[in-house]
Amino acid sequence: MPRFTPAEKERIRERLLDSGYDRFLADGLEDTAIADLTADAGIATGTFYSFFDSKADLLAAVLRREAARVHDDLEAILDAHEDDPETAVRRFLERASVAIVENPLFRRTVARSDRERVHAALSAEELKDTHDRKLSLLVPYIEAWQDRDLVVDGDPETIGMTVLYAAYLPLHRAEFGAEQYPRVRDLLFEWIATSVTT
Amino acid sequence: MPRFTPAEKERIRERLLDSGYDRFLADGLEDTAIADLTADAGIATGTFYSFFDSKADLLAAVLRREAARVHDDLEAILDAHEDDPETAVRRFLERASVAIVENPLFRRTVARSDRERVHAALSAEELKDTHDRKLSLLVPYIEAWQDRDLVVDGDPETIGMTVLYAAYLPLHRAEFGAEQYPRVRDLLFEWIATSVTT
Repeated sequence: MPRFTPAEKERIRERLLDSGYDRFLADGLEDTAIADLTADAGIATGTFYSFFDSKADLLAAVLRREAARVHDDLEAILDAHEDDPETAVRRFLERASVAIVENPLFRRTVARSDRERVHAALSAEELKDTHDRKLSLLVPYIEAWQDRDLVVDGDPETIGMTVLYAAYLPLHRAEFGAEQYPRVRDLLFEWIATSVTT
Repeated sequence: MPRFTPAEKERIRERLLDSGYDRFLADGLEDTAIADLTADAGIATGTFYSFFDSKADLLAAVLRREAARVHDDLEAILDAHEDDPETAVRRFLERASVAIVENPLFRRTVARSDRERVHAALSAEELKDTHDRKLSLLVPYIEAWQDRDLVVDGDPETIGMTVLYAAYLPLHRAEFGAEQYPRVRDLLFEWIATSVTT
């Protein structure tokens, strides 16, 4: 491996993640060549393995970066509406529910035939972690809103989990059909947002 | 096959369903012998195939009978609380959510290793049908309640689907954990029941 400074390494890693996002989305995991990824990043093919163990490992890192961006978005939404929990919860659910399941890269890769190959790199525990991280993000806001009498009383974790359940709706999209799904989503998020607030 | 009268056939079929329920629950599909089922029903082993194509076919019929019983229960709940939709919806969700996923026979068989063998007999369309039947049951009540101004305005089908989504909660039980799950369930059902009513 050529000697890279830490800043160069970070830049190359970011370029590999960007290239991975674009190419996996366009071509899928199987039909993306490591040589294309490294060409995009301006490094030799073999140097790829100084950064990632496999294409699946890169895909997992891309999805992890997406999840971190969603997390930042969710935090920004809660902050922006900290005086209006009803709007905060509705926007939170709107963003969280499209985050993983409707993410086009996730649908193109994990939701299709690449699922098993990625599974090794992006474990069930990691997906569970995503759920737990969303909950950790939400609970302090619920506590602060309860102190201000803006949110109903009760265990903040139970309330947070009940809110988060609504974000699983896209997993059941098929049962609702294309026409009803957006209506059910809007109604459910409205019911949850108004129920959680006083 | 011995000559059975239609009434005898019906009785034997019921006995096979009863025996299947007990034995599949106790021993699972794999470890239940057709000879045991037919002994319980008082028929020769080979006569089994005049009634069902396979053990998996019998299990599917047992689960179908359970689903029909749940449907009757749900209808009775809606009738019993026809003047109080908040209670009706809460009880409906309580019954519907334990119906399939928490049914001990379903958990003992379909939710475990027998899943694939049963899948052929009890198809995804049939499970979808169960959802659609619950919806068909609920929608006329919603319409009647709307006429009496007891339930919020809006497309009765959208409202019914949104209510039914809460019944999928047990599918996500693992994410909530044993301690929080019953609390999340009670809170969610309360929120849905109070949101749907005026």
